[in-house]
Amino acid sequence: MKNTNLTISIIGGTDGLGKWFARYLKNKGFNVIVTGRDIEKGKSVEKELGVEFTNNNIEAAKKGDIVIVAVPINVTERVIREIAPHVREGCLLMDITSIKEIPTRAMEENVKEGVTVIPTHPMFGPSTPSLLRQVVILTPSEKHKKSEWFKKVYNFLKKEGAKVIVIDAEKHDKIMGIVQGLTHFAFISLGATLKELNVDIKESRKFASPIYELMISIIGRIIGQNPYLYADIQMFNPRIKEIHETFINQCKEISEIVKNKDREGFVKIMKEAAKHFGSEAKRGVHYSDKAIFALTSEIEKLNKLIGKEIAVKNINSNIIHFGVLKDIEDDYLILDKNGKEQKFNILKVEVFSGDELNELKKKHLERKYIDVSVLFKKDVNEEVILNLLKKMFDIEIIDIYEGDKIENGYKSITFRIYGYSKEELKNIEKEFLNIIKNIGGKERFK
Amino acid sequence: MKNTNLTISIIGGTDGLGKWFARYLKNKGFNVIVTGRDIEKGKSVEKELGVEFTNNNIEAAKKGDIVIVAVPINVTERVIREIAPHVREGCLLMDITSIKEIPTRAMEENVKEGVTVIPTHPMFGPSTPSLLRQVVILTPSEKHKKSEWFKKVYNFLKKEGAKVIVIDAEKHDKIMGIVQGLTHFAFISLGATLKELNVDIKESRKFASPIYELMISIIGRIIGQNPYLYADIQMFNPRIKEIHETFINQCKEISEIVKNKDREGFVKIMKEAAKHFGSEAKRGVHYSDKAIFALTSEIEKLNKLIGKEIAVKNINSNIIHFGVLKDIEDDYLILDKNGKEQKFNILKVEVFSGDELNELKKKHLERKYIDVSVLFKKDVNEEVILNLLKKMFDIEIIDIYEGDKIENGYKSITFRIYGYSKEELKNIEKEFLNIIKNIGGKERFK
Repeated sequence: MKNTNLTISIIGGTDGLGKWFARYLKNKGFNVIVTGRDIEKGKSVEKELGVEFTNNNIEAAKKGDIVIVAVPINVTERVIREIAPHVREGCLLMDITSIKEIPTRAMEENVKEGVTVIPTHPMFGPSTPSLLRQVVILTPSEKHKKSEWFKKVYNFLKKEGAKVIVIDAEKHDKIMGIVQGLTHFAFISLGATLKELNVDIKESRKFASPIYELMISIIGRIIGQNPYLYADIQMFNPRIKEIHETFINQCKEISEIVKNKDREGFVKIMKEAAKHFGSEAKRGVHYSDKAIFALTSEIEKLNKLIGKEIAVKNINSNIIHFGVLKDIEDDYLILDKNGKEQKFNILKVEVFSGDELNELKKKHLERKYIDVSVLFKKDVNEEVILNLLKKMFDIEIIDIYEGDKIENGYKSITFRIYGYSKEELKNIEKEFLNIIKNIGGKERFK
Repeated sequence: MKNTNLTISIIGGTDGLGKWFARYLKNKGFNVIVTGRDIEKGKSVEKELGVEFTNNNIEAAKKGDIVIVAVPINVTERVIREIAPHVREGCLLMDITSIKEIPTRAMEENVKEGVTVIPTHPMFGPSTPSLLRQVVILTPSEKHKKSEWFKKVYNFLKKEGAKVIVIDAEKHDKIMGIVQGLTHFAFISLGATLKELNVDIKESRKFASPIYELMISIIGRIIGQNPYLYADIQMFNPRIKEIHETFINQCKEISEIVKNKDREGFVKIMKEAAKHFGSEAKRGVHYSDKAIFALTSEIEKLNKLIGKEIAVKNINSNIIHFGVLKDIEDDYLILDKNGKEQKFNILKVEVFSGDELNELKKKHLERKYIDVSVLFKKDVNEEVILNLLKKMFDIEIIDIYEGDKIENGYKSITFRIYGYSKEELKNIEKEFLNIIKNIGGKERFK
């Protein structure tokens, strides 16, 4: 898609995931218009992202080569019915709603002939750094699946590294009733229960099995999300009633069995559930083991790095900090950055050392260098020497001179050695020359 | 504790965690007796672990310097009442039951004067490799906390690397009602619900958000456990009724709110739960982010290692395999071990490369070596040369000779270079000599 020519209108693009796409697509070179009801907020987003703002949905829909509906679920159908008839022929209408049957039907019923409809559900939230490795579900009808627009959208998403899944709207909502509906319902109920029972969460974690720790972190994550979005995800899926009822009935049945101390009854329920899971039960053991293990083994690795040079990268923003690991306190690591201490939440960062650290330094820090000329016997193979020195230094050969000015039987090799500060380079030069004189070389005095 | 003199009797030590402790303590040098009702199984365990078996609980209780009750929860009280009076004065009575109020009371009420009682709850299962980093809860009364036995048990566990927590039995059961009771109840109910709704688990994972994936893995893990143990953990905690009722009521309340499309009501519940969690909500985001990130970044690292030498360690058994990473397929990595291919479940292993791989090879593989004597100028600092060579080889200096037999102005340095096969050593020697002659050295011909 030639980005610079296309205008994308994001209806509801002043907030949430709509705003995320506004920023993302503007950075990809598209011309972006956002709409919203709050004019002050709209003008602020205009400045912040360098996009155009209007509070007139219909006007924006008329202008867009691509029109994306990104309003809250509870007003999505209304807004679609309002703007869909105004999308120009040959253009593309999309949405990013977490449910698909209702918006898909509304879009298809209300567009002009010649407008392509590609409903989407991006399975991530506005804190995600990019489309890389994110799941995006597309639910176009058969007719629109064959369109040029579909190919363009599909290829764009794949190029951005997203994992694209194409299914029909009904199947989507059925699966999402479980993947999102049941999941959110169970964890929000658990969160409310812990509050009702007045459980001291932090205290309980001291006695935590790793699974309890994982459960608490998932509950914490979910209940901290946008409650209006989560309310709508429950309320706009027609299948949620059956899901709630089935879950509550299972809970009641098991509770009754426990009350009656019906051991065999309890065992039967667990075994039947395990049988239904089949190989997924064992996979669950491994996957959760691995998640837990990854966290604990990382704390161990960190402990071994105290006093050593590391790089710390924020796993959301990707910003990197270099320094020496001073200490670890609870969830925090303390980094010494040239005498200044900075605290980082271990849970928010990735830590690099050794070779990976060196790669990052090369990539992100400005390298300085010194050039040192030394003499070696003419018959020496300088590649062999360079290979050996590369194990200790960031080093290249930039010149070899075998002329009159050089002592007989010798050649002059000029090495370029890299470092990250004048002080580091002074030490490097000292060390380098000490090695040179012990491996048959001598300093060249100019 | 002088292990070789002490006899530990494990009542119910032919199975489950009791058998785990029988093996563990036998390996630590204790004299171990196990009891069980199944004589055939008992004799088999006798052979397998090198312990003594009897099906007479009272006899075992009389013999033990330390007596540990390790029978299923539903018979624990009965067995304690049976054997506790027979524990000799000056000895120690313990248990490893997942609930603590009932066994603690039963032990304290039925022992002779002069018998120490230290009830325990080891927070791990029989698949755990060792006590290292595992949580062990002790619930002795104030009187027994002051005993010599308590100090010995506490110090032993700490020395083994366990995380020891000391609280009273009532507080333990209260917290475990949540940490184990509520957790298991919620996830088993979820597992039963997914079965009732006939959800294709594997299919659903294709549309999974990372949180759903985590939830599914926890459900799978829990429903695959020993159902009788899990039944008893529910049935023998007097607080479980209140916990079940509160959870079910929260589910019903939220379901009703959703049915009535009461958006503000839903938002209120989520916000109140979030408020109760406080900073634990944010921590939950980071912790679950980290767990998810750890898994995905590992797959990325693995992809970069295709074609390279790696070590693969099973995270439960700790067995290590060396080879070249051939390919990655779904959850499996394919290792080339000297021409033979072996598949490993990525979720079950830890992968090492680079320096860590070298450390492991040194530790686990039998090293072979060659000794090579070379000549260097007398004034050369061999430490500098060794340091440099160490970056390329696993190498030491084993001899330096400056005598008559050596060419004038030179000294002979004998290097020992390690490798893992004759073929590898041949290549190493060639490479080594090539480097030596380029850094001012020469081969010494004997």
